[in-house]
Amino acid sequence: MTADHVADQLNATIERTKSIACVGLDPRPALLPKSLIDAAIAAHGDTAIAVADAFLKFNIGLLDAIAGHCAAVKPQSACYEAYGHAGVKALEDTARYARKLGVPVIMDAKRGDIGSTAEHYQQAFLGQAPGLKGTTLPGLNCEWLTINGYLGSDGVLPFLNKTPGHGGVFVLVKTSNPSSGDLQDIALAKNVRGKSATEDANQAMELMAQLVHHWGQQRTGKSGLTDVGAVVGATYPAQAKRLRTLMPNTIFLVPGYGAQGGSAADALAGIRSDGRGVIVNSSRGIIAAWQKNTDRDWSGAARAALDAMNTDLASA
Amino acid sequence: MTADHVADQLNATIERTKSIACVGLDPRPALLPKSLIDAAIAAHGDTAIAVADAFLKFNIGLLDAIAGHCAAVKPQSACYEAYGHAGVKALEDTARYARKLGVPVIMDAKRGDIGSTAEHYQQAFLGQAPGLKGTTLPGLNCEWLTINGYLGSDGVLPFLNKTPGHGGVFVLVKTSNPSSGDLQDIALAKNVRGKSATEDANQAMELMAQLVHHWGQQRTGKSGLTDVGAVVGATYPAQAKRLRTLMPNTIFLVPGYGAQGGSAADALAGIRSDGRGVIVNSSRGIIAAWQKNTDRDWSGAARAALDAMNTDLASA
Repeated sequence: MTADHVADQLNATIERTKSIACVGLDPRPALLPKSLIDAAIAAHGDTAIAVADAFLKFNIGLLDAIAGHCAAVKPQSACYEAYGHAGVKALEDTARYARKLGVPVIMDAKRGDIGSTAEHYQQAFLGQAPGLKGTTLPGLNCEWLTINGYLGSDGVLPFLNKTPGHGGVFVLVKTSNPSSGDLQDIALAKNVRGKSATEDANQAMELMAQLVHHWGQQRTGKSGLTDVGAVVGATYPAQAKRLRTLMPNTIFLVPGYGAQGGSAADALAGIRSDGRGVIVNSSRGIIAAWQKNTDRDWSGAARAALDAMNTDLASA
Repeated sequence: MTADHVADQLNATIERTKSIACVGLDPRPALLPKSLIDAAIAAHGDTAIAVADAFLKFNIGLLDAIAGHCAAVKPQSACYEAYGHAGVKALEDTARYARKLGVPVIMDAKRGDIGSTAEHYQQAFLGQAPGLKGTTLPGLNCEWLTINGYLGSDGVLPFLNKTPGHGGVFVLVKTSNPSSGDLQDIALAKNVRGKSATEDANQAMELMAQLVHHWGQQRTGKSGLTDVGAVVGATYPAQAKRLRTLMPNTIFLVPGYGAQGGSAADALAGIRSDGRGVIVNSSRGIIAAWQKNTDRDWSGAARAALDAMNTDLASA
């Protein structure tokens, strides 16, 4: 992580690359080119280490192809955790390689816990953990981490660095899945509002949005954006517009573009009038683009799909 | 995991050990006896591997002392993740050692995601992941996993095994922390209710409770309890009583006893009339009990603290 405020860093990357795309690094065996599978099995047999090795080589190839043409990458932690500590090692090496290439990393782990436990997650993904002698040991040092705010302020504040901008979070507000309304859309009684909000919240997601805005106050960078972002799915554009009014200085991380059904216009529904404040994720659409043709040039196919996504977003 | 329904297995363990206590295996450098710290530094220097090594030896000593005298253990994943893949390896070895001793493992990871991503978390903690050749690779095979239901049904159902009872979950309903009410206590409009519920939910946590009850229907074991449990903090006993009426067949995992201020009576507020359906967690109160005396017999101190907790709970 650089010394810049993470929101400014992300904004600068967007201006430099002319892209608001985030590439989801969500490897799965079924998405891997055969050449990588064969090489990993030859080296490690049919093991978790082989999967982890193939994941890492896949990511390195993808990162080499897309660095400089996207705003960020977003590894999905679950894909790696399924292969135990070997998978986690591949996740670590992926994050380090992205940093080497200057690509901001949004770790999609959706963590949520309280107090000292939340601090341990913060140490793992954004900070440093204490060693046995009271020294500190380096963590993953990602720029951003997705978190779940169901536990309230106690489950969010420990993730925020004492120095605003030194590591940021994206709090789940309105997720892109069909059943996200089970809880997020529920209608609230009158006179319910989040901390420091000036109007009533109508639905649970609006209350969460008010809290996100509150948590991010006094934490803006030079770009006018804060280090407390929000996850707002592309599949609910009307809600994104409403949520923008509640979170004017918040970066929206937008999943649900492409495969899940959100169009470019849907994905940009929550954009600010100055054209800032939204990054749009695509995972399978980029990293598995090679499956539509051949696996000869899987990294080139990813780059071509990213270019097409950038064009699609720019035209919307 | 045995072939038994996890709720029946937990119930049988409670009957055999005469304990409803769950011991939180939440190691931190500051909680480790000096002898373990010195040995780990001598072997591995001031590194993450040294921390992981000391954590594992601490847990093995604790497990040897408490096995047969508690209902379950609950490792807090964050404590291990703070030390990267080395920490995760210690977590894996801890879970395997607990299984060897016949102690049910509740993995406290509070995961929450949707669809295939949630399936990867299920594979990591409760199931098996696909290898490169389409074979399956063993996961951690814990009995239970804590999860966060903010994403709705799409974020819960993928965690449930097709065969009810083959791995269970505890969904966060009312957490023990002071700010849990930020979202969980919000008042709902009239006529809001969870799936298949017969009465209105007054607060978000009640809606979540109705959903938990719904998700667990048709998934009960011989004990009459389901594999969809709920986290209900000891610090909110009045709410626990109310939540029990909404979740009659649900096991409550109760944090907040002891250090966080919940008494034995508070912790048991949600118990069923047949005396079933509650397990009570204590972490620091057990594993750091040695700090009140000396570290000469830290495992003995843990066992004595567990015995005292069992007596306290039995008298309440």
